Amino acid sequence: MAESKLEKQKPDILEQEIVAQSRLFKIEQLQLRFSNGEERTYERMRGSGRGAVMVVACPDPEHFYLVREYCAGTHDYQLGFPKGLIDPGEDALMAANRELKEEIGFGARRFITLKSLALAPGYFNATMHIVLALDLYEEHLTGDEPEPLELTRWPRHRITELLQQADFTEARSVAALFLADAYLARNPDVFELTA
Amino acid sequence: MAESKLEKQKPDILEQEIVAQSRLFKIEQLQLRFSNGEERTYERMRGSGRGAVMVVACPDPEHFYLVREYCAGTHDYQLGFPKGLIDPGEDALMAANRELKEEIGFGARRFITLKSLALAPGYFNATMHIVLALDLYEEHLTGDEPEPLELTRWPRHRITELLQQADFTEARSVAALFLADAYLARNPDVFELTA
Repeated sequence: MAESKLEKQKPDILEQEIVAQSRLFKIEQLQLRFSNGEERTYERMRGSGRGAVMVVACPDPEHFYLVREYCAGTHDYQLGFPKGLIDPGEDALMAANRELKEEIGFGARRFITLKSLALAPGYFNATMHIVLALDLYEEHLTGDEPEPLELTRWPRHRITELLQQADFTEARSVAALFLADAYLARNPDVFELTA
Repeated sequence: MAESKLEKQKPDILEQEIVAQSRLFKIEQLQLRFSNGEERTYERMRGSGRGAVMVVACPDPEHFYLVREYCAGTHDYQLGFPKGLIDPGEDALMAANRELKEEIGFGARRFITLKSLALAPGYFNATMHIVLALDLYEEHLTGDEPEPLELTRWPRHRITELLQQADFTEARSVAALFLADAYLARNPDVFELTA
């Protein structure tokens, strides 16, 4: 039972094939042989590969912005942080600033990348960069949303209550909330630096 | 900019159709009309619908168990909490106990459900129940893993270091780590109750 990282030998990919495909998704089947000789068939999804951003935007040390948006997967509205795919030609922070302007009507002069998260690495190769946005200014860009998003300014001291909301359940939003709160607790002077 | 939840009118589903399908996945196309009249085409994935569990198992107040497991989506090994699908006929806690026995060689006498997380609700209707497991006992079940998982007992006081590990990136594991740590910080006597 080691606490250090062991270099493990990855399985060999014996065969790989796209077995189903739609406008947005490709499903790939892999035939794998593990280092102990075991062979298995796996499936995984191929996405755009460009990655995505999720933005915790703070107008002051005690608040952050949430949006409520329609989610087709659950056919319901979900509360969460502004997010979106990185467009061709953009880097993560350019995408973060564009998404903020489209979804909440603010840009930001400072971004701090907190962590890059994987979706469900057993099945996807999808990375989302979690970014803290500070020093906000008003600027609205028109995005591709079918309807205006409902905007909420949530107080940091009510995080426990947010975690109890039935419509705040996306794992990446929950992780982003804790990552941002931990960063702000460790760096209480971060807002003074931007003043 | 309201802080209370507004009841929003969901879009109407005008058409829905399975457009691609593999052994594990179904991709469904939806034609939607939003309450403002805007129409859009969405795609979403259909899974088993049975849900999954992820287990933070604590042998004592200062440690939890992690496993390192091959992930086909990223073709790499990932450090995270034991997890798995709920099998037919199981409830979430039965599945949690089975996965623990298969993946780390322990069962648990007490489970505390911390939160149910959504994967990426824009595209999936997949729920994972995050469960704290206490009062562990040794028992091993043989699962369907192609190779033994590498087991690590991680100290709670080294959470910041865990978050910096390049192979600890799954959003649901990051969320589970913070949820468990926050619960244990708020309930320091939870281990005395089980003694």
